Amino acid sequence: MNELLQKLTLWTQSPKMVIGIMTGTSLDGIDCALCRLETIEDTITISLVHYICENYPKNIKELIQKVLIQDCPISDFGFLHFELSRVYAETVKNLCKKTDILQTDIDLVCIHGQTLWHDPNGKKFTLQAGSGEVLAKVLGIPVISDFRSGDIALGGQGAPLVPMFDRCFFGNKEKKNVLVNIGGMANITILPNAYANERIIAFDTGPGNVLIDSLVQYYFDKQYDEKGSIARQGIYNQELFETISSITFFREDPPKSTGRELFGQNLIENIIDTCSHISSYDIIRTVTEITVWNISNHIERYAHDAEKIICSGGGIHNEFMMQLLQQKLYNKTVMTTKEFGIDTDAKEAMCFAFLGYRTIAGLPSNVPSVTGASRDIILGSLSFP
Amino acid sequence: MNELLQKLTLWTQSPKMVIGIMTGTSLDGIDCALCRLETIEDTITISLVHYICENYPKNIKELIQKVLIQDCPISDFGFLHFELSRVYAETVKNLCKKTDILQTDIDLVCIHGQTLWHDPNGKKFTLQAGSGEVLAKVLGIPVISDFRSGDIALGGQGAPLVPMFDRCFFGNKEKKNVLVNIGGMANITILPNAYANERIIAFDTGPGNVLIDSLVQYYFDKQYDEKGSIARQGIYNQELFETISSITFFREDPPKSTGRELFGQNLIENIIDTCSHISSYDIIRTVTEITVWNISNHIERYAHDAEKIICSGGGIHNEFMMQLLQQKLYNKTVMTTKEFGIDTDAKEAMCFAFLGYRTIAGLPSNVPSVTGASRDIILGSLSFP
Repeated sequence: MNELLQKLTLWTQSPKMVIGIMTGTSLDGIDCALCRLETIEDTITISLVHYICENYPKNIKELIQKVLIQDCPISDFGFLHFELSRVYAETVKNLCKKTDILQTDIDLVCIHGQTLWHDPNGKKFTLQAGSGEVLAKVLGIPVISDFRSGDIALGGQGAPLVPMFDRCFFGNKEKKNVLVNIGGMANITILPNAYANERIIAFDTGPGNVLIDSLVQYYFDKQYDEKGSIARQGIYNQELFETISSITFFREDPPKSTGRELFGQNLIENIIDTCSHISSYDIIRTVTEITVWNISNHIERYAHDAEKIICSGGGIHNEFMMQLLQQKLYNKTVMTTKEFGIDTDAKEAMCFAFLGYRTIAGLPSNVPSVTGASRDIILGSLSFP
Repeated sequence: MNELLQKLTLWTQSPKMVIGIMTGTSLDGIDCALCRLETIEDTITISLVHYICENYPKNIKELIQKVLIQDCPISDFGFLHFELSRVYAETVKNLCKKTDILQTDIDLVCIHGQTLWHDPNGKKFTLQAGSGEVLAKVLGIPVISDFRSGDIALGGQGAPLVPMFDRCFFGNKEKKNVLVNIGGMANITILPNAYANERIIAFDTGPGNVLIDSLVQYYFDKQYDEKGSIARQGIYNQELFETISSITFFREDPPKSTGRELFGQNLIENIIDTCSHISSYDIIRTVTEITVWNISNHIERYAHDAEKIICSGGGIHNEFMMQLLQQKLYNKTVMTTKEFGIDTDAKEAMCFAFLGYRTIAGLPSNVPSVTGASRDIILGSLSFP
């Protein structure tokens, strides 16, 4: 008899302490959210117990950047896959130290991993570094990892996965709501009201902070544009805006997802090469406008009748960008998830705690109308402690 | 309630149909063994229902060879990780077609994956391509994958894992037996008799077929040395023998494991570069002697009192090599696993079916005295169908 599996079948009968770890494409840190999850009469509730965001150790960040942009020996990936989980283990231990929660009180750890490639349309694969086996064994806690592969294996985009979370915690009975997450990439979830006979739509709209961050690093040697103060000093450059906004991806209909393959090193180098005549402030202003435009344009196209635009992700700290977004969407209310009780920074990490909880509970978590997968599936792989 | 987990907790109460898939370092094919496993009074029995060995599709074999020897974009690995599982899925379907077993009758598929790197001592990681998530979703069958990472995460060598299988099916109450598997690498398991107060020892002894196969391909444009006929025509070259046998690995005490990092492309190119004055027949003869020597030498050092030397793996088809091995071990009986009812070619694939069965049953499968891990653990990650 497998005692662990026996224990897991009783999963939903009592509250669980679940950690979600998210590491986004912007490499801005390790989001680690300890959540309390409970199922009462088939409804799952989630509350944030503690959240920390830690920086990547310098050598890991450099190794990730290296494998993202240049040809490497396969051993670089193998080492990164293990080492990331050793880093995640330290993050979990640090989180425990900052609370009165013992490591042994944690029921499950769920890791998204570091996306190194995401190509659901061409060669149809995705790749996240971070080994579930290593983390489970080092911590002595069950781990769920690799949430995206299964959906792509069944013809889906493998993304976004947040709509299941959004539906459960931001759905409105009478009004259409839109969730916007501005991480490295930006994605939206359009939640029809409970009475509408419409499906959830969710997709990546394009770059979130990735272009801003990379170009601020290049031109200003800063990690990001704090409060948008650099963009605020710049002037919108139509030529650059039109060059970027002409990328076909923006005109495609959902389901669609994107990543650094399209909005990464190649595009950034291209901007740097071709914009030597444009002031660096104007470049930052214009790529900020690109982010605002790709979000608002998709909302106008697919959710013009929405009332609330509920934002999360690192991008919401860019005050100037949020102001521009409210201007573009002047007939809607731009707000944050905090007003729904979900911490804006912790949201994605909480989402993966929620998805892993569902995996153990035997619940499917992809939304086929969103991802395009051929069926709904239980996401992720379970590593034993 | 997670119905799959509920079902899995009843796992040992009835016989199970489990497929094990092994793909070794020699890239000589996909070993796929359908086994019937049953637990009766805490004793697990295994029988082979059907076994097939399929060649890798040419493009996959070439991609594996490419990532093994040259710097590549990370997307090459990501694609290979997915594509291998798509190939494994076809192999499972082909096996079902050749029997009267339906795909829906299979309870579990266990994959070793294709080892691309194995470095338990230096940077402490291992890497197998082949995604459990992809295979589980494509087939609609639970999959166990990634058997080696957890042991390395706990300070072990991550290899060999076959000793648990060997102990269960080849142990003798009164006599010491030695199992020898001659795949790409060669490894041995020394099983003390049931009354001896000795631990199991098992380790890689060095190259199995890898040097022979690679050099036969280079000099004779053949996949392998059939029955050892090329080696039989050559003459032992002492200089070359001493060069290879002087590699420190051979003199180290177990636990130890090895792979293509030490006995791979670098060594092969080195042999080719430095042996232009030696006949190609003599080179093949000498690397065959190296394989025989590294196996017999380790047996003499660590199991001089063993009676039976029980062989399996592709190497046993090399008649000349087996004759040499019997000559070296003249006071012992060299035989094959077939005489114990375990098909020699299917043995490794059967082993992983067995290990995955144990994972679901909640049984640990590493042998810490063998691998050096800090504790015994349930191996591998479970992907939901």
